[in-house]
Amino acid sequence: MSPSTFSLSELLAPVHSGLEAMRCILSAELSGEGLVGERTAHVARFRGKELRAAMVLLSGQATGRSTPEHPQVAAVLELIHLATLVHDDVLDGADVRRSLPSVHSVWDEQTAILMGDMLYSRAFHLSTCLDSNLAARVLSKSAQRICAGELEQAARRYDFNMPQADYEEIASAKTAELYAAACELGARYPDAPSQLPAPVAKLMRIFGEELGLAFQIIDDVLDLTGEASVVGKSVGNDVEDGKVTLPVLHVYANVDETTRKAIRDAYQGPCDGGRMALLRVACDLTPGLEFARNRAYGLLTQALQRLQTLPDSDARRSLVQITEYVASRQK
Amino acid sequence: MSPSTFSLSELLAPVHSGLEAMRCILSAELSGEGLVGERTAHVARFRGKELRAAMVLLSGQATGRSTPEHPQVAAVLELIHLATLVHDDVLDGADVRRSLPSVHSVWDEQTAILMGDMLYSRAFHLSTCLDSNLAARVLSKSAQRICAGELEQAARRYDFNMPQADYEEIASAKTAELYAAACELGARYPDAPSQLPAPVAKLMRIFGEELGLAFQIIDDVLDLTGEASVVGKSVGNDVEDGKVTLPVLHVYANVDETTRKAIRDAYQGPCDGGRMALLRVACDLTPGLEFARNRAYGLLTQALQRLQTLPDSDARRSLVQITEYVASRQK
Repeated sequence: MSPSTFSLSELLAPVHSGLEAMRCILSAELSGEGLVGERTAHVARFRGKELRAAMVLLSGQATGRSTPEHPQVAAVLELIHLATLVHDDVLDGADVRRSLPSVHSVWDEQTAILMGDMLYSRAFHLSTCLDSNLAARVLSKSAQRICAGELEQAARRYDFNMPQADYEEIASAKTAELYAAACELGARYPDAPSQLPAPVAKLMRIFGEELGLAFQIIDDVLDLTGEASVVGKSVGNDVEDGKVTLPVLHVYANVDETTRKAIRDAYQGPCDGGRMALLRVACDLTPGLEFARNRAYGLLTQALQRLQTLPDSDARRSLVQITEYVASRQK
Repeated sequence: MSPSTFSLSELLAPVHSGLEAMRCILSAELSGEGLVGERTAHVARFRGKELRAAMVLLSGQATGRSTPEHPQVAAVLELIHLATLVHDDVLDGADVRRSLPSVHSVWDEQTAILMGDMLYSRAFHLSTCLDSNLAARVLSKSAQRICAGELEQAARRYDFNMPQADYEEIASAKTAELYAAACELGARYPDAPSQLPAPVAKLMRIFGEELGLAFQIIDDVLDLTGEASVVGKSVGNDVEDGKVTLPVLHVYANVDETTRKAIRDAYQGPCDGGRMALLRVACDLTPGLEFARNRAYGLLTQALQRLQTLPDSDARRSLVQITEYVASRQK
């Protein structure tokens, strides 16, 4: 895999107009008056790279299945993503999101819970305005898997003996599912009864799942190694929160009981950022980080192979470059 | 209006088999294995009178619009209702629901937030399995109105000068909306393109809105007057939470400044149940309670008049009796 030398906006050039259309729809959904309008306007500022929306559009173009409704499908996905962010910040007690105060920091937890519910409901309502109910069907299943993953993650805190498969299912549920759904919907929407279910839609779902899982694994690596100033958010959060991620699981499985105890103690250290420092003293994380990076690169290599079955196109080249971008990301 | 002398299960006899079908669908949605299954099994124990589901079925029968899918529409409504209950308990910090510990008391707030999201997503998924997307469209709008009402309510705490119309919009949004949607869907589902939109569906929505608003006003009266042992939950919660309901608004508008100050001070009293006692000392609530009860009876009388335009049937008689039941309820 060659390192990415493109900026993200260059990579997304083939779907520039589709993304513009998506942003118009999303802005309309995030506008409003009065109390609710003021709160949604704040949430609108959390809009980021809109990578999930881009995947819907690129997947549609790369498989020759684009429709005029694809930007709206993409907007539904971004709304669900925003809903999960608002609730995630409550779950994690995170006060900052994209260098802005999170909803519960500006107002309170009650407001954040209700605003998340509001965004979910708007997403589902927008999906019912589409000609086909495929997006509503797929994404209401996605939302369930995301919740199940978060519940499982919370229950598995401080579980140093978690099998890698369980870690990966949690990471897939909370992160890869929306990428998988985006790629599937791009290649499958509207799934008209006259069309045979396209095998390419299955292929694109798997591509999205591999890309998304690799994305999350790299996120977990950066949380252990990154500099807050580069990553753009505080790091060491997983150790603070008792989340045992792949690098630590790998190290833990391969050290003696004395080191294991030191690792467990580090996770119970003072919760003011001190746990990360203790963990670095307790063990050498290098082999675990190496193992996790290799797993992510392996997934991304598989993901690239899926794309080889698609005909050459600008959109396909973008998907290849996004995969390389994920591999090389430092934030 | 004659006082109700029937038990609720007698009133619901005309839709007995539909309710049984609804319960089967709901039970399937609330079953599952592992971690999520265990948590949904707990939520399933919060199922109560299932009055909203009954309204879907009765409204369908009374207007001659029943379909084999009506029980599933009713199940979607109950799922959304359960989702709101789980999040409401977090918002209100309520530890008990139907004499059982609330989700966040058994597990934690994180679990309760995620389980509410899970139930919303299941509700929307179930709605996408219906032949028509009418239920999904109507109920995703309902969910938005419920959230907006709760947000407004939170922002208007300690607002003793709130106009009655604002109080009623909040009460309608958080409670009447689901009754209104239930009655509308019963009379309108599936809203086939070949059918003209039935004026009767509009009429039934208004009936549901009036019934639901009256229900909430009586709830607010009982919170000020009821005995915990009769109502089945703790009372005086609104005063504890700073919610200024119709009886208090009416009293406040009609007393001198000294009494007003005493009322405001009561709402700031010690929050261990002492505020209700202080409020009783601060003012005579009787005229406010009378005013609120009269408003509720007025709404219920209007609601009964809506039903007069329907042909006589067992279902219509049930709707009349449910309206009388709401008027006479002590819990």
